[in-house]
Amino acid sequence: MPDEAPQHPPATSVPVHLAPRPANLYHVQIGDGVLRALADLTKPYDAVLLVQDPGVPGALADEAATIISEAGPRLARHTFAEPRETVKNLDSVQAITRDLADLGADRSTSMVVALGGGIVGDTAGFAAAAYQRAIPVIQCPTTLLAMVDASVGGKTGVNLQTADGSLLKNYLGAFHQPLAVLADARALASLDPRVFRAGLAECVKHACLAAAFNDPELLAWTEDNAGAIGARDHNTLGELIHRNVRVKAAVVAEDEHERAHTAGRALLNLGHTFAHVIEPLAQLSPDNNPAHAPLHHGEAVALGLVAAAAAAHAIDPTPGTKAHAERLGALLTALQLPTVVADLPESSALAAAMLHDKKTRAGRLRIVLPQPDATASTLNDPPESALLAGWDAIRLS
Amino acid sequence: MPDEAPQHPPATSVPVHLAPRPANLYHVQIGDGVLRALADLTKPYDAVLLVQDPGVPGALADEAATIISEAGPRLARHTFAEPRETVKNLDSVQAITRDLADLGADRSTSMVVALGGGIVGDTAGFAAAAYQRAIPVIQCPTTLLAMVDASVGGKTGVNLQTADGSLLKNYLGAFHQPLAVLADARALASLDPRVFRAGLAECVKHACLAAAFNDPELLAWTEDNAGAIGARDHNTLGELIHRNVRVKAAVVAEDEHERAHTAGRALLNLGHTFAHVIEPLAQLSPDNNPAHAPLHHGEAVALGLVAAAAAAHAIDPTPGTKAHAERLGALLTALQLPTVVADLPESSALAAAMLHDKKTRAGRLRIVLPQPDATASTLNDPPESALLAGWDAIRLS
Repeated sequence: MPDEAPQHPPATSVPVHLAPRPANLYHVQIGDGVLRALADLTKPYDAVLLVQDPGVPGALADEAATIISEAGPRLARHTFAEPRETVKNLDSVQAITRDLADLGADRSTSMVVALGGGIVGDTAGFAAAAYQRAIPVIQCPTTLLAMVDASVGGKTGVNLQTADGSLLKNYLGAFHQPLAVLADARALASLDPRVFRAGLAECVKHACLAAAFNDPELLAWTEDNAGAIGARDHNTLGELIHRNVRVKAAVVAEDEHERAHTAGRALLNLGHTFAHVIEPLAQLSPDNNPAHAPLHHGEAVALGLVAAAAAAHAIDPTPGTKAHAERLGALLTALQLPTVVADLPESSALAAAMLHDKKTRAGRLRIVLPQPDATASTLNDPPESALLAGWDAIRLS
Repeated sequence: MPDEAPQHPPATSVPVHLAPRPANLYHVQIGDGVLRALADLTKPYDAVLLVQDPGVPGALADEAATIISEAGPRLARHTFAEPRETVKNLDSVQAITRDLADLGADRSTSMVVALGGGIVGDTAGFAAAAYQRAIPVIQCPTTLLAMVDASVGGKTGVNLQTADGSLLKNYLGAFHQPLAVLADARALASLDPRVFRAGLAECVKHACLAAAFNDPELLAWTEDNAGAIGARDHNTLGELIHRNVRVKAAVVAEDEHERAHTAGRALLNLGHTFAHVIEPLAQLSPDNNPAHAPLHHGEAVALGLVAAAAAAHAIDPTPGTKAHAERLGALLTALQLPTVVADLPESSALAAAMLHDKKTRAGRLRIVLPQPDATASTLNDPPESALLAGWDAIRLS
């Protein structure tokens, strides 16, 4: 009964073509009073939500609000709850986007201005990325760390809370490049010393890569100016931020979405593969004082840089790699960052934990090694002996 | 004391350049058994999360799971809770991404396969877009609506629940183009009739635009085949899906991110600006039977198309626009979709509500008008008389 046999039309296929996206450009403005640029930047919009960090001095936040209001847009303000990792989550994204909806924000005529440290910038940036499938954001970082690191590269995101209550850092997010970044250096004056130094650890990391990104003298300049940096000298900080942003921008321009395996953004993990293992350990403190536990991110990165330099020497045991490791340790010490830590678990246990870090690709561990010429290289599947040498180097004996 | 005067370094600026994104291409495969392509598509990955709609026949979902498992990747399955608008939210995104984390999914080696209707595809697609700032997704739509509409264009997203409990539809999301779309026509056989007809409303919409997107004969073909379509004839449905996907793909290729104000994706709002106003009204039913209330999305779109055609005639009262409105009404009737509705609020109240639709730009209302040559045009700030004519046209008197 051929008429009743089911007819199976051949499978067909329709191609969907997506046009290339044009090149993009934005500027990081650095200096006292650059928040004034908010006037021209927000003027074309109808509605602006200012998401502010409770840690920002009230006068500075009010100044930003006044500049925006006087430029014309309707303004609402959202003060972020405590800027801690535990509130960097989807609930905060929902709270921010509800305020956008209450303001009547719409994807063609509204924007977000994020004023604060990295947690506020990451969360508000992701809220802007998700709201009506993306509205613009202006990032106004107020910590040194956010100025030299988080504000450049377009990474936004929040933590994913697992069913057992643990936090997976930055597991939910988007690449959402800001319309502009305004790093107003006046925000740095009142910064808590440990928060300030957290930014310095990333500056040392950048200095270790800078020769490959157009600033071969940054490491020596940072050494020469360590005292003035620690004293928060005005001109010195301006130059520090400018040169570090330039290095980060050069890295990001090469590899916006972190697709390259051996270069580009992967190099920014220098020190971090070690740091991620010890940062969650509640008992560790930067100065062997339990009242100062746990480590801040920057302190863990400082220790991670020391460990990475020791691992580089273990893999290539030359006088050059040894001298470079000593040089980094001395610079971190001059900047009052830790280079050793007490109460560290067994080195073999720490090495095993590195294999579980999210930077592993397909189950392989990749570390970044600082080289004496102020460049860095990546190494897949490093020998365990190198990892152990790294952990041993930061152990307070 | 000039030495103590604060030194204000001049503000500086660092440009951040982002490379252009290359053109992208993916394929929509249509036909019986195209789920087999999951084998080759998932083979290069280590881990796959299959997010499945509880409405999909179990045998089809199990077949997809077996194909993936036999191809090699570790597989986990996430069955979506009831696929309703109220569970298309951030909680579901969190639940899906937790399952990804439990699977050890990582952005270089893992992917999501979404098998289901539009709600599952939109939610799973946004979860994939957000997880570690995007992992790939394969969309396997199982309803006619999802095949011809939601699966093409890369829009993903969930609803934002406001503090008062109301839902803002698709207010949180991302543009995230799938790696591939597999429209396996076997899924259509068991579809609920109202769910099936919801897809037909979007097909009529596409037919009204198709002359500008390489298929001027689609409207006449749909009329000629209305009977076979309603009977779900195998070959006819295959051609219907293929031609509708081709029209949608042509529209999207022109305007991926819905930036154009007067063309491209804006035209896909044909019928929708009216539909969005009546879709939330709990008392409306497609056949004046309270047990069938509220309207399904496709039924609201069918009514919206009739209203838009009446508005087009009110603005340009020629025999051509009148004949076109009658032609659309006859086609919708042939496809068993509603063209009039009882219990409609006052036309003036409905016209006022349109101004609050989220498709308004900067407070202006823009409607899309079907034209007799199977093209459509947009009109900003339409006269109220045209809106009233639209609403009057669908009122069951």
